[in-house]
Amino acid sequence: MGSVITLTTDFGHADGYQGVLEGVIAGINPAARVVPISHEVPPGDIAGAWYLLKTHHHYFPPGTAHLAVVDPGVGSKRKIIAVQTARYTFIAPDNGLLSFIQKKDIISIYSITNRKYALANISPVFHGRDIMAPAATYLSLGIDPSCLGRKCREIKKLSQTDPARKKGKIIGQVLWIDRFGNLISNIENDKLSLGAKVSVNGEDLGPLRRTFSDVRPKQPLAYIGSGGHLEIAVRDGSARDYFFPAEGAEIKIEVASE
Amino acid sequence: MGSVITLTTDFGHADGYQGVLEGVIAGINPAARVVPISHEVPPGDIAGAWYLLKTHHHYFPPGTAHLAVVDPGVGSKRKIIAVQTARYTFIAPDNGLLSFIQKKDIISIYSITNRKYALANISPVFHGRDIMAPAATYLSLGIDPSCLGRKCREIKKLSQTDPARKKGKIIGQVLWIDRFGNLISNIENDKLSLGAKVSVNGEDLGPLRRTFSDVRPKQPLAYIGSGGHLEIAVRDGSARDYFFPAEGAEIKIEVASE
Amino acid sequence: MGSVITLTTDFGHADGYQGVLEGVIAGINPAARVVPISHEVPPGDIAGAWYLLKTHHHYFPPGTAHLAVVDPGVGSKRKIIAVQTARYTFIAPDNGLLSFIQKKDIISIYSITNRKYALANISPVFHGRDIMAPAATYLSLGIDPSCLGRKCREIKKLSQTDPARKKGKIIGQVLWIDRFGNLISNIENDKLSLGAKVSVNGEDLGPLRRTFSDVRPKQPLAYIGSGGHLEIAVRDGSARDYFFPAEGAEIKIEVASE
Repeated sequence: MGSVITLTTDFGHADGYQGVLEGVIAGINPAARVVPISHEVPPGDIAGAWYLLKTHHHYFPPGTAHLAVVDPGVGSKRKIIAVQTARYTFIAPDNGLLSFIQKKDIISIYSITNRKYALANISPVFHGRDIMAPAATYLSLGIDPSCLGRKCREIKKLSQTDPARKKGKIIGQVLWIDRFGNLISNIENDKLSLGAKVSVNGEDLGPLRRTFSDVRPKQPLAYIGSGGHLEIAVRDGSARDYFFPAEGAEIKIEVASE
Repeated sequence: MGSVITLTTDFGHADGYQGVLEGVIAGINPAARVVPISHEVPPGDIAGAWYLLKTHHHYFPPGTAHLAVVDPGVGSKRKIIAVQTARYTFIAPDNGLLSFIQKKDIISIYSITNRKYALANISPVFHGRDIMAPAATYLSLGIDPSCLGRKCREIKKLSQTDPARKKGKIIGQVLWIDRFGNLISNIENDKLSLGAKVSVNGEDLGPLRRTFSDVRPKQPLAYIGSGGHLEIAVRDGSARDYFFPAEGAEIKIEVASE
Repeated sequence: MGSVITLTTDFGHADGYQGVLEGVIAGINPAARVVPISHEVPPGDIAGAWYLLKTHHHYFPPGTAHLAVVDPGVGSKRKIIAVQTARYTFIAPDNGLLSFIQKKDIISIYSITNRKYALANISPVFHGRDIMAPAATYLSLGIDPSCLGRKCREIKKLSQTDPARKKGKIIGQVLWIDRFGNLISNIENDKLSLGAKVSVNGEDLGPLRRTFSDVRPKQPLAYIGSGGHLEIAVRDGSARDYFFPAEGAEIKIEVASE
């Protein structure tokens, strides 16, 4: 059985950019199984890809290579890195996308520079196809990551993924809005106490709920989403429509622990 | 060769919910082949999923497990069921989605309650990932459906999938509108006589046609679609645009048999 | 390991039309690996499918069968063809979609008419599922294309894929706009000299650039895209938004070689 390679990109499904990745992979390791996590990250939204890969990657079998390409700096001097943990390999531009990986879990970080594991022709505008997909596939075949380039000491960080704290309150923001209009915040499960009370733009949502049917239809609720983050939803409706009357208005999520 | 597991959901392609299903499946049965039928069912549209799965499922090889997750009642008391026929297994919430399966074809119905065949942690808002995907995968590995829970007697029904009859006429409605703007009705092939005449919102479309080129460009036509339902199209155009001038206007399809 | 079958269609991802292709393929050749290049070709956009398949097909391993279904003439007298080259097989309606294949590369062209290699029931509105997918799959199993029907002499051509020339200038047009708003022209790499200067709608973009970071943020640039065509982009922005203020306005790309 081949190993799994997941894809998380901002390529969409129309232009063939996502399909050609699998063509390159199949040419190098015909037994690899390719699973898209998402190709619909908004163009250039590194924090969105950070959220998706953080949330979903651990549902894949050990040995999976997670390839993520949201790469607004393609062709510039940003690095491409391969990060090894006990269970997985991650390949992505070093732009913060992989900063959810805990320092204690990291076995090694390598900068991918060895063109022996890239396609023969490298387009300066598509390193996902010409450098990252081949590297991920060779890793799935078992080459040692040290073959790919030089060892690095750390991963670039993102700032917007951490909630703020102020006078005992947690002030969060929306990282991702899903298809159901649920607002997914940057406040994680382990930061919430049992009696946490949530408000959104000043509207009190009361205590955390377990699931949608704990409130009446069309009522907003706060709950721990399936990815372990605090989420805001409206039962049989859309929290996006409920809380965002004006285009681009900010959303402020406050959590008080009592 | 592994068996096939199809997916029909309202998850979309952006949020990774569809990708993580395949991660869970690959972890339990690495040889299973996952084929999405659609992840673009409108959120909560049970009748839409009913139509898609009814139409497409029988093109898959015998032994296929069809997993369908349109589950607005997640976390409430609705059941999750596994339905066995001679050729296939179906796994879905018991909300009417599977009511296209003919009583005579059903070998067994089981309510899925045994947590031995679920993930260790079950989110109250994502039973597709934590209960249904594992169950479908264990079924694809050959476990007996009776291991999953208690036997049930029947499947919940949907109402809007049956056309009405009035004074010898069949009165249908639109179940699904496809990407080409074709209107797919709830009137099935076997209910139509050879001389059937079709009208839409009072506009006479004449007899059933065989294919688009049987009418002039920009003309509307009625024909038997590739899924066996009566469909309305406009050649080199869109029946959605032709018949729906106002947002949300109803469409009434009448068939007279003479 | 099974061979690869790619899909390029205008089916979208909602209606299950793309999923059922893989069901048919899996029923005939369970070892075939199906890779979508794109299902999001605009309905009926033959030149769009031409561009996508031309650009991406050669990244797939030798022996791949490329199936493309953009078929506004379904059910009419247009032919369905299988084209053999040294590395690949292509299956599509003969409507110009395959005219990027160079005459010198063609080993054979066959019209697909033998119903022995089609499904038992053929819908007059879905030859992709009932004729083309089975034919592509039997080809992936190694049947000789001559089994499928009669030999043909040539492929139908498209006109809009060739740029015009006027007074030493190349006058191109936009073939495809990708998710990032990049405008992909019908002017190919090998037609451009090193000192080529590009203007769009009269605005001078200067010389060809190597990549986005060669200009300042929000500046437009011309460069050779990853598919080998002249492309227009705006760094950290969208060339679609920059050059298309009015809906449907034409875009005129001029290249002077000095």
